[in-house]
Amino acid sequence: MSWSIVEIVDPARAKAFEGLFTLGSGPLHVRGSVEDHPAASPQNVDYQRRATNVTSERFTSAPRWGAYVPGLFAPHPTLGPQMVNLPFFLGLDLEHASGERLHSGSPRVRSHRRELRLDLATLARVVEFHGPSGERLSASFERFVSAEHPHLCVQRLTLTSDRATSLRLRSTIDADVRTNGYDHAQRVRLEAPGDGTILCTLRTDAGDEVRIESATTGTWEEVRATREPRRAHLLGRVMLRPGIEAVIEKRTLVTTDRDLAQPAATMAALRTRTFESLLDAHAAIWRDRWSRAGVEIEGDDESRLSARASVFHLLRAHVDDDRVAIDAKGYAGEAYWGRFFWDTEVFLLPFHLYTEPSRARSLVDFRVRTLDAAVENARRYGYRGAKYPWEADTLGRECCPNWPYADHEVHVSADVAYAFAHFAAAADPAYLLGLAARVVVETARFWMDRMETREGDAHASILGVMGPDEYAPITHNNAYTNWMAAFNLRLASQVGAAGGATSVESAEFGWAAARLGLVRAADGVLILQCEGFDRLADPRFEELWKDRSLTFGANVSQERLFRSRCLKQADVLMMMHLFPDSFTDEEVRRAWDYYLPLTTHDSSLSPAVHSILASRLGLSRDAWAFWQRGSRIDLEGSGASEGVHIAAAGGVWQMAVFGFAGLRSALVEDDPTLNPRLPEAWTALTFPLAWRGARLRVRIEMGRASVTNEGDRATGISVWGAKTFVGPAETAEFSPVPP
Amino acid sequence: MSWSIVEIVDPARAKAFEGLFTLGSGPLHVRGSVEDHPAASPQNVDYQRRATNVTSERFTSAPRWGAYVPGLFAPHPTLGPQMVNLPFFLGLDLEHASGERLHSGSPRVRSHRRELRLDLATLARVVEFHGPSGERLSASFERFVSAEHPHLCVQRLTLTSDRATSLRLRSTIDADVRTNGYDHAQRVRLEAPGDGTILCTLRTDAGDEVRIESATTGTWEEVRATREPRRAHLLGRVMLRPGIEAVIEKRTLVTTDRDLAQPAATMAALRTRTFESLLDAHAAIWRDRWSRAGVEIEGDDESRLSARASVFHLLRAHVDDDRVAIDAKGYAGEAYWGRFFWDTEVFLLPFHLYTEPSRARSLVDFRVRTLDAAVENARRYGYRGAKYPWEADTLGRECCPNWPYADHEVHVSADVAYAFAHFAAAADPAYLLGLAARVVVETARFWMDRMETREGDAHASILGVMGPDEYAPITHNNAYTNWMAAFNLRLASQVGAAGGATSVESAEFGWAAARLGLVRAADGVLILQCEGFDRLADPRFEELWKDRSLTFGANVSQERLFRSRCLKQADVLMMMHLFPDSFTDEEVRRAWDYYLPLTTHDSSLSPAVHSILASRLGLSRDAWAFWQRGSRIDLEGSGASEGVHIAAAGGVWQMAVFGFAGLRSALVEDDPTLNPRLPEAWTALTFPLAWRGARLRVRIEMGRASVTNEGDRATGISVWGAKTFVGPAETAEFSPVPP
Repeated sequence: MSWSIVEIVDPARAKAFEGLFTLGSGPLHVRGSVEDHPAASPQNVDYQRRATNVTSERFTSAPRWGAYVPGLFAPHPTLGPQMVNLPFFLGLDLEHASGERLHSGSPRVRSHRRELRLDLATLARVVEFHGPSGERLSASFERFVSAEHPHLCVQRLTLTSDRATSLRLRSTIDADVRTNGYDHAQRVRLEAPGDGTILCTLRTDAGDEVRIESATTGTWEEVRATREPRRAHLLGRVMLRPGIEAVIEKRTLVTTDRDLAQPAATMAALRTRTFESLLDAHAAIWRDRWSRAGVEIEGDDESRLSARASVFHLLRAHVDDDRVAIDAKGYAGEAYWGRFFWDTEVFLLPFHLYTEPSRARSLVDFRVRTLDAAVENARRYGYRGAKYPWEADTLGRECCPNWPYADHEVHVSADVAYAFAHFAAAADPAYLLGLAARVVVETARFWMDRMETREGDAHASILGVMGPDEYAPITHNNAYTNWMAAFNLRLASQVGAAGGATSVESAEFGWAAARLGLVRAADGVLILQCEGFDRLADPRFEELWKDRSLTFGANVSQERLFRSRCLKQADVLMMMHLFPDSFTDEEVRRAWDYYLPLTTHDSSLSPAVHSILASRLGLSRDAWAFWQRGSRIDLEGSGASEGVHIAAAGGVWQMAVFGFAGLRSALVEDDPTLNPRLPEAWTALTFPLAWRGARLRVRIEMGRASVTNEGDRATGISVWGAKTFVGPAETAEFSPVPP
Repeated sequence: MSWSIVEIVDPARAKAFEGLFTLGSGPLHVRGSVEDHPAASPQNVDYQRRATNVTSERFTSAPRWGAYVPGLFAPHPTLGPQMVNLPFFLGLDLEHASGERLHSGSPRVRSHRRELRLDLATLARVVEFHGPSGERLSASFERFVSAEHPHLCVQRLTLTSDRATSLRLRSTIDADVRTNGYDHAQRVRLEAPGDGTILCTLRTDAGDEVRIESATTGTWEEVRATREPRRAHLLGRVMLRPGIEAVIEKRTLVTTDRDLAQPAATMAALRTRTFESLLDAHAAIWRDRWSRAGVEIEGDDESRLSARASVFHLLRAHVDDDRVAIDAKGYAGEAYWGRFFWDTEVFLLPFHLYTEPSRARSLVDFRVRTLDAAVENARRYGYRGAKYPWEADTLGRECCPNWPYADHEVHVSADVAYAFAHFAAAADPAYLLGLAARVVVETARFWMDRMETREGDAHASILGVMGPDEYAPITHNNAYTNWMAAFNLRLASQVGAAGGATSVESAEFGWAAARLGLVRAADGVLILQCEGFDRLADPRFEELWKDRSLTFGANVSQERLFRSRCLKQADVLMMMHLFPDSFTDEEVRRAWDYYLPLTTHDSSLSPAVHSILASRLGLSRDAWAFWQRGSRIDLEGSGASEGVHIAAAGGVWQMAVFGFAGLRSALVEDDPTLNPRLPEAWTALTFPLAWRGARLRVRIEMGRASVTNEGDRATGISVWGAKTFVGPAETAEFSPVPP
């Protein structure tokens, strides 16, 4: 069962599972909502979401429908462009012959269970009712978003009863939905032309056309259509006899003017396929995906499931389309408006890069594609070059309505350059000779304008920035930002010619990089997060963090966060994670000892980095504790209510592979280099690894490791300091050096 | 004519004059809008104002009606409570017998002139038309908001023609108005019960009842009423004969549930009064006001008019009601939502305090009255004591929707304590023994919680604040804030017992005050605005301040302001102005030399402080230049479009009295002490001065000064270092000491 996440449905946590149970195929994602209409939680309520940081918002626990096509954005009047929540097409409602609704919130429910099959990417829901006439009724819903036909959602409903009875079934497309409380539908047309079809065409206020066609078929009778202005239904009767299953199928094709050209023809072709044939094709694709990307943990079921859930969402949320990156909620909710953050480059790219580089390519290509918007963004601020937005839409425009992030969290531009270098190092060295070089040069030009040299200083400075730690909003010479910008500049000095820089300008990039430094404490070892960091206020956690079930940020005022020596998330340590060979173990350890007691981990991006560095430092208890904390964010509490923490899912993969397996980045090693340290609870860790054209499978057990070359390219390999060479189909075995 | 401001009406600047020509009486204020409906500028447009700093907003130049009752607030959905713009009751529209409208924007206008009489507080407008039948028509409008009956607005329209003709006249109350683009009317009722009356009753969405009754009378005929949902009109015919004036009067009484109890009876009584009798009574009150508060400048007409315009608005905008303070736009526009800032305590109080202390008392009492809200505000942030809001409504709640100000610009709490001490010193020493002492103690308690001592420091710190210079948003140990907080704490240590502090707590306040210091540069003389101020970026004005017709802030991005060594307004110098005996001339001069080249004066609060300190330093050219810059803010350009800069008007008074007359604050002198240095252009400066019960009249000429005691209390007096004593009705003469 460790491929399954099972929920015994409890209304208090149903919304979290709704997010966690999101299915998707790349171009289409659907939250794991129940099929019946949640009457107590209307989905057509207008409300005004504030332009605040989402971490300071309070969301309700009411169910939220969500159907998303990545990149389909429309303008919110105060918040800017956001991904549109499309009509809810899963609707299948039951009514007893007596006229009573049999819905998932009814007191007639005897049992209610949902199950996400991670291996198959299917969601099942079984609900049993005490029927009004004393029957025992069971409704079993299955669904998947087809990997074979990624615009298609397939549903099957199987009904049984222990007595003869009849039910009324309603199949619905409900276009009366909102996105973050806002109605983006400019025009909705709903038709039921017969043959079990409901057709919804919708024009968004951004001018996009959406077409949703569903076909409901099966053992129902007397089917007729009804319409409301924003909904269309098919109503029919299902006769149930003891021991005989009644089966209804619903297939929905969701297309937009972004993609599929011939939806009607496609739908017609799909009608001839059986459920089983569609499921088999879908499952086969997922089997292959798992084999090429799955992280398998043995010895600890909880870890195994966490890793699988993370990889599941990582695979699901990737769109094979360079018009989008990966939004912060993995297309499973609206909390971050479907926008693209640095999460893609830093937290998500490695998984794709080291498992299936072609998937990584579309992610880096997205930033190439949106270079013009970044140039325009820099210009708006008065700078040359390219300033990548803190929150991007598909056009790469800055969408963030909060200036502390949009204006000051500038490291994202260097994160893009870092990701390009990472892609080049791990997958395709030629990448930096193409259009990507222009991005590297334009971001370097931005840094040239954004940095300055203060009177009396020998070094250059980047002043007034927010680093990864968002509890320090306007700081000077933030370590992470300076180091990243210097990397960006050095990279530009190397690839300058390909990116349109003269040799003089390229040289200038290199000189500028050398003039950007880090601020250190008096001991010369501790790297300060920024100038004067050690002169900030004591955060007084003992006294002020009263309710530990909430973040520190929810316990105190923002102004106290902003003046205190408290970190929302890793900042100096984040830098050390990304540049593993730039800092000595002593420096890392000193930073660890200094910052850890000050770090709140109020950001979900924090635990993974800590676990990885703890592994490096041999702090196995910390590595394990942060694994446990970071790997279950979406599996516990209200974690996935507003969408999955997809960057944290990327962090789970990184903890396993960079942390416990000790893989060093392709930016610092030519050949795969691992220094595994498994947690005590694990007996084995197995994962595939793509590295510069080689395809390996790494298996680590206590006291041994093996690397099998599953590709056609030989490669050097180093494990626990022992270097060897593995040819195609060969396996190399390793043992740790005794301490 | 130097009591008049005359406008030859030009649409491009009409809106600025509209604000500048605001009339008011304390409880009622009306912008100087034209009486006819500006058809091209509808006043009922809904729009969404952003929750941004108003200085970064762009406003249109379209006319904006405004009728305000101070303190009448209602909730804006995103911006918070704001002062409600009431129905427009001035409406008097003319139509020619031919059916053509004769309005102020018509091409038939031959001449168009408005004139504000500052001495009489009346507004006149004369417009002449080429009539459609070849007549020469003239419409002369007069109005005033009665000082005698401060809820009453009186209008007179005199029409003439050189040929017999008839006009149609429409008298309107238009309730279809918005406040900052938002409609606060929950219920509007409009009636025209005959007898020239229009009655508008309105309930705001805050539940306040507003009653507007207007009576239109005079030589019109066939009067009939028409109504629209949100407007009521009376229409009548006016027959014009050559050489004979037709006179129409309109009187409007505006009352709310905040004030007048018997509006109908009051209105009935007022109907029997002639226009002249109402005007005479009004003018007599204003004559008395001017005599007790006017600053008279001789030798320079421009300066004289600036001073008079400033005093006019200072007198107008004061409400004899401790339920309100003075809003940032002097009840002449909506740009700051009718809210109360530190402007009242620091920029406006001195004028009232040193001319009519009873007016000053209602201002300080307002903060006593709203103490509970300040205590609640502190609690919300996790502090004991009282944190006064950056932007207060009548209940003293924090209304500021922008956290950098609401959270970080904390000096306002100490400004309140400073104002209390100022009031006690200049007017009533017993004030600090009453309820005010609780305010002083509660604000001190806030500072005790808000300050902290960093490891390794002997001194205490206030971290993470914005000082008066709002281009430095989150700084540590801001000089102004620290010095003000220390003053607040010392004051609390003195009045602690009366305010509910134990002797131990009072002693602690004193110790804490002593531990708050200033940051100084290496020379030991220069006071730094905050820690690390000298390590900020060069603002590069030469290169970046390209369009000098705009503020620096409008030339560059906010993030550049926030990281640069540029000041929006005086900060260290502001402190030195408020504490004239705490800093040596050397310290002031050093600060002047250092900060002046860095100061943008993007805030209207900046020039006055500079002029005053320049006077102190003997920099007479600078004192004069800043007088010229600071005294004409509302008289030039688009200055008063969104309301008058009432704090700058207070600054004009301060420049004359504290600056050129060199009056030292009652906080540092027992007797009035002046060190006059008139600008070369002035031949004389005369002003009344109230000081601890004494009432003096000061007259300064080149080479001599005299002080006449007009009250009944003798007082010591010092001018140019010469001390003497003036008894009632005595005059003392002074000459400057030769250098």
